[in-house]
Amino acid sequence: MSDLIDRLLDGLPQDAVLTDPDVTRGYAQDMAGFCDSGTPAAVVFPETVAQVQHVLRTATALRVPVVPQGARTGLSGGANAASGWLVLSLLRMNRILEIDPVNRIAVVEPGVVNAELSRVVARHGLNYPPDPSSWESCTIGGNIGTGSGGLCCVKYGTTSEYVLGLDVVLADGRLLTTGRRTAKGVAGYDLTRLFVGSEGTLGVVVRAVLALRPSPPPQLVLAAEFASTGDAGAAVCAVMEAGWTPSLMELMDTTTVRAVNALARMGLPDSTAALLLVGFDSTDPTGDLAAVAELCRAAGATDVVPAADSAESELLLEARRLALPALDSLGTTMIDDVAVPRSRLAAMLDGTAAIAAEYDLTIGVVAHAGDGNTHPVVVFDAADPDQAARARASFDAIMELGLDLGGTITGEHGVGLLKKEWLARELGPVGLEMQRRLKAAFDPDNLLNPGKLF
Amino acid sequence: MSDLIDRLLDGLPQDAVLTDPDVTRGYAQDMAGFCDSGTPAAVVFPETVAQVQHVLRTATALRVPVVPQGARTGLSGGANAASGWLVLSLLRMNRILEIDPVNRIAVVEPGVVNAELSRVVARHGLNYPPDPSSWESCTIGGNIGTGSGGLCCVKYGTTSEYVLGLDVVLADGRLLTTGRRTAKGVAGYDLTRLFVGSEGTLGVVVRAVLALRPSPPPQLVLAAEFASTGDAGAAVCAVMEAGWTPSLMELMDTTTVRAVNALARMGLPDSTAALLLVGFDSTDPTGDLAAVAELCRAAGATDVVPAADSAESELLLEARRLALPALDSLGTTMIDDVAVPRSRLAAMLDGTAAIAAEYDLTIGVVAHAGDGNTHPVVVFDAADPDQAARARASFDAIMELGLDLGGTITGEHGVGLLKKEWLARELGPVGLEMQRRLKAAFDPDNLLNPGKLF
Ligand SMILES: Cc1cc2nc3c(=O)[nH]c(=O)nc-3n(C[C@H](O)[C@H](O)[C@H](O)COP(=O)(O)OP(=O)(O)OC[C@H]3O[C@@H](n4cnc5c(N)ncnc54)[C@H](O)[C@@H]3O)c2cc1C
Ligand SMILES: Cc1cc2nc3c(=O)[nH]c(=O)nc-3n(C[C@H](O)[C@H](O)[C@H](O)COP(=O)(O)OP(=O)(O)OC[C@H]3O[C@@H](n4cnc5c(N)ncnc54)[C@H](O)[C@@H]3O)c2cc1C
Repeated sequence: MSDLIDRLLDGLPQDAVLTDPDVTRGYAQDMAGFCDSGTPAAVVFPETVAQVQHVLRTATALRVPVVPQGARTGLSGGANAASGWLVLSLLRMNRILEIDPVNRIAVVEPGVVNAELSRVVARHGLNYPPDPSSWESCTIGGNIGTGSGGLCCVKYGTTSEYVLGLDVVLADGRLLTTGRRTAKGVAGYDLTRLFVGSEGTLGVVVRAVLALRPSPPPQLVLAAEFASTGDAGAAVCAVMEAGWTPSLMELMDTTTVRAVNALARMGLPDSTAALLLVGFDSTDPTGDLAAVAELCRAAGATDVVPAADSAESELLLEARRLALPALDSLGTTMIDDVAVPRSRLAAMLDGTAAIAAEYDLTIGVVAHAGDGNTHPVVVFDAADPDQAARARASFDAIMELGLDLGGTITGEHGVGLLKKEWLARELGPVGLEMQRRLKAAFDPDNLLNPGKLF
Repeated sequence: MSDLIDRLLDGLPQDAVLTDPDVTRGYAQDMAGFCDSGTPAAVVFPETVAQVQHVLRTATALRVPVVPQGARTGLSGGANAASGWLVLSLLRMNRILEIDPVNRIAVVEPGVVNAELSRVVARHGLNYPPDPSSWESCTIGGNIGTGSGGLCCVKYGTTSEYVLGLDVVLADGRLLTTGRRTAKGVAGYDLTRLFVGSEGTLGVVVRAVLALRPSPPPQLVLAAEFASTGDAGAAVCAVMEAGWTPSLMELMDTTTVRAVNALARMGLPDSTAALLLVGFDSTDPTGDLAAVAELCRAAGATDVVPAADSAESELLLEARRLALPALDSLGTTMIDDVAVPRSRLAAMLDGTAAIAAEYDLTIGVVAHAGDGNTHPVVVFDAADPDQAARARASFDAIMELGLDLGGTITGEHGVGLLKKEWLARELGPVGLEMQRRLKAAFDPDNLLNPGKLF
């Protein structure tokens, strides 16, 4: 143990190595509930690639497990440490190295905060679409680690679509460069996208070449109320079937709408079964919203309110952003992340409501409806062991429902520790074995974030 | 050998197994020059997943190498067989299994021809963007094998962006299912995209879930003439920097323009140094073309001709489509596929012209200019050994130039046999070793298309 610290200090400045257990304990876990963690032996904050290489060489020499960490906003326990592990925080590697408007790329270090990158590229008329709701704190390294999404995905896709190339330090300390700086390229297996979503288990991302897009026109949003989830689901299907590509298509169920009202008195329609928000950042958002409003009414919307301008649109989005804080204010929460084919959205909502009734719990659902990606939020009293057990059981029942509907156990938050058993169920034995073989190919000593995913 | 045939016939109908060397020789190679090949021991045409599994189990039991084949339009030797190998043709697995407009997916067998899929989904108001120029013959399995591109990529991306999930038969005959049917999903490592571009070396794709988009509005195209490649390159940069996203942005150099005129008397401007085609499939293509025409003029275009309607646009595209046949008519051709950052396009064109002069050869360049993806086409007399050697040397010089300009040796055609040595150079020793480890994880006996890529 003191050997570990001595060796680390051989290649790191004093202030880059934390060892006080009272301090390192603070780096033990991300934002997920129901996941084990333990006090790390040390937390290191390298500032250069060479320092990251030194850390991993040291860890491999001493056979100490390492977990890479960004901002620890993860929701699956993917960034959790176990007792005696080394936490490798990338927060000090937070420089934007390059922004290139002609080639529409940015080159960044992993600790850059998502919103910071968005703001800086916006000054060049550019846009980095992936927008997890945690964007003011989460890092690009964490976004790559989880393959994160957000509200933009229905039009712009997820993080995977925006990573062109990576520099990665492997478990043994060697530096691997993947991908390219060009718009296209097929030279060898696509290692870049293999790292996206690999949850820190294959290597440590120390540099990323990201694709950017031109800034879109301002977005306009409408809100549509529905008396049943079936009608709301039908509206989502009708909009997509008619060939529209909204820039945003979010849904809140009645539990969530009430929670937001209770928190912020936003005057949302308390009686609605589902509130759908649809946005367009097209050249004619008013016209597009009018057409979509018609489709919503035809699907049974009881009221449709298009925002007149950006300010009104922002207000609607603010209500959506308050959904998680609002549900949080009701008790301890556990947020699920099941994606189903969008045609099964209503079935997913109804099935989740039935699960809430069966387990006698409050479960509010917010969803990236256009993607069929639901976030059922289980609310419970953590001080009540019986409720906590029911919460965990309902969480599992939601994943089972998602798989039954042809979906996946995780649309964007990842597997981490929280969903390990369920990953095995989703992938089946052959799939799981190939995942393990891949892991062994990159990390034969199983030192990089071991025990995550499977 | 006769053991091989007997065992194959245990699980395949008689007419699905070809063994006559005069016939099997016809399946020895794809469309690439300068690549070795040998007469296959047999060519099999399975029609079901179970039959593919039987073929691979047999091959593994007898340690016979297998190469999967689509339409053999590949341009890197990736589909070539060596003497005694088994060719596994997917051409009879050519059913479109499902088209789902609400979820915007198609489920297909690998032998479906790209253009056939496009036509069928168009009837549902949908679009499958990847459009290699070989689209009337190449297969979806081959497109996935090579990660193929086309003219659409500047706006719509490549095949990798459209593959959501796969069924793959592994070397040992087991069936692996990857990915999902949902819009999003991050359950485990992204094996789906690892298979895209893997050139038949990791497994045999037997089923694919593909993402579709709504059909775009009709495309309008303009042609701009430039007196220098520098001006043309500057125009490309100006258009992209100004935030435009054309649906197509193609370039032909003077050699190519003259060859097209010679072949088809299209009345293209023979004296131009570079002809740029820019298309928009937006809601206001006329307005967008007018704005881009201004940018082209500001960059020094000597003439800009926007098409008045779809018919005129088609005529311009027809000239582009004739580029390869036109260069082919000048002699034996070898088509390269180097992608550079689009800001280096002019340098790539000038460097290629210098290489043509140095090696005393005709080299015409067509390029997916918006992606910086150039196709220098080396024209030579195959009957003249000295010219053939110079052609091969110039081909290598073009790749070296591309790497020097920060590019990749292959934007969309793949590595196959043709660019093996160059892949090692592009990836470096660590990159290459990780590629090999991946291969070994999937195909430990090295029986699936061995010797390709590296
Ligand atoms: C309020 C809230 C809202 C959220 N909304 C969304 C949302 O809309 N969409 C969404 O997708 N997620 C969302 N999340 C989840 C979370 O923010 C994302 O998963 C985010 O990408 C995590 O980034 P991070 O920097 O916090 O990473 P961490 O939590 O620190 O790490 C996440 C994973 O990535 C790995 N990792 C981190 N850095 C590296 C690196 N440099 N190299 C290799 N591996 C690395 C870690 O080991 C871990 O497995 C939300 C979370 C919260 C708390
Ligand atoms: C005139 C012409 C124009 C072209 N234009 C373009 C272009 O614009 N853009 C572009 O990207 N390419 C282009 N190409 C190259 C070629 O058409 C593409 O690479 C195409 O994707 C190959 O498809 P195929 O069915 O012919 O595959 P094949 O040539 O038969 O095979 C290609 C590779 O995929 C593997 N493979 C095939 N099927 C499977 C399967 N089911 N499972 C696993 N592996 C498999 C093979 O082993 C091989 O490695 C062009 C070729 C020609 C001749």
